[in-house]
Amino acid sequence: MERGLLIVISGASGTGKGTVCKKILADLPKISYSISATTRKPRQGEVDGREYYFLSVDEFKQWIADEKFLEYAEVYGNFYGTPLNKIEEQLNRGEDVLLEIDVQGALNVKKKCPDGVYIFLLPPSLEELRRRIEGRGSETPESLNRRLKNAVAEIQIGREYDYAVVNDTIENAAAQIKSILAAERCKVARNTDKFNF
Amino acid sequence: MERGLLIVISGASGTGKGTVCKKILADLPKISYSISATTRKPRQGEVDGREYYFLSVDEFKQWIADEKFLEYAEVYGNFYGTPLNKIEEQLNRGEDVLLEIDVQGALNVKKKCPDGVYIFLLPPSLEELRRRIEGRGSETPESLNRRLKNAVAEIQIGREYDYAVVNDTIENAAAQIKSILAAERCKVARNTDKFNF
Repeated sequence: MERGLLIVISGASGTGKGTVCKKILADLPKISYSISATTRKPRQGEVDGREYYFLSVDEFKQWIADEKFLEYAEVYGNFYGTPLNKIEEQLNRGEDVLLEIDVQGALNVKKKCPDGVYIFLLPPSLEELRRRIEGRGSETPESLNRRLKNAVAEIQIGREYDYAVVNDTIENAAAQIKSILAAERCKVARNTDKFNF
Repeated sequence: MERGLLIVISGASGTGKGTVCKKILADLPKISYSISATTRKPRQGEVDGREYYFLSVDEFKQWIADEKFLEYAEVYGNFYGTPLNKIEEQLNRGEDVLLEIDVQGALNVKKKCPDGVYIFLLPPSLEELRRRIEGRGSETPESLNRRLKNAVAEIQIGREYDYAVVNDTIENAAAQIKSILAAERCKVARNTDKFNF
């Protein structure tokens, strides 16, 4: 059984990684989505066990103690974590798993799973990034500026990834990501059995 | 000016690399083809400076002495070489250059140009490889067996490449190679300018 691909997609906040990941999952239904755990409150329409596992802070700390996380991080006062055991099960069954996580989380995952595919989404411009963060409508001027400054710092961390994809349109970004996945499946290291003649 | 991609495609003899490369060049006309030099005699329809630079053995040795080759090798009593100066000019102009070379040649190029994209074409099966070599019609039973044995040995060297593509149909192989090129253009190392915010 060939091990599945661990696909990690990150981007600074406001880059649109959620929308791009939804498109990838819709177009490539064989890819499984890794559900994260968080202590932040559910937004309208979010369901426990679908968008996130919504945990209390105490529950989250128990999962940490039980070593259930591949990585976890605190972002704007909330905890986010990636359940390790579920992902390993999926990969070993040969399933490809998509992980949409924050920049800090992804670098921790990269240390533990260097054979994953690390894709960083970039905004087409600073102006467009500002528009997208503003468009969420839930920002005060202070939090907008803090998020924008933070986003620019996060983008620099993207240099540690394998691939950079500019999210100018969802279609373009998704097409590039599909090419990356097709190419990764052709890597010699993932196809050693095909050399046995 | 961003440097172009050096695309190196190899495969054991009879794997159909010539046909696949022609398809790639037809579909992606922006890619330039690197013309090799050889001391073998032109086949019917081959034109000097188009398929190859056809050189005498003395001329070839002079090119070696003048360090005009990125690599050169002797295959079945003939010399084959890749002119270095032309390729460097093309890459520095931002052109992608496709290099279709033998296995031994490719490994020499990989040492000198590790940032190239090294793609190895595999036959779908040993039986199919035998059929394709037979199909050329220019083989004696001895040379067929020698070529087949040699091909299996060459395939093992393919493990040193970056990517493995099975040439089951020209369309499939070309599609996979196009994905590989699209993915390589997304590599962070080739896009550092896009992180300057």
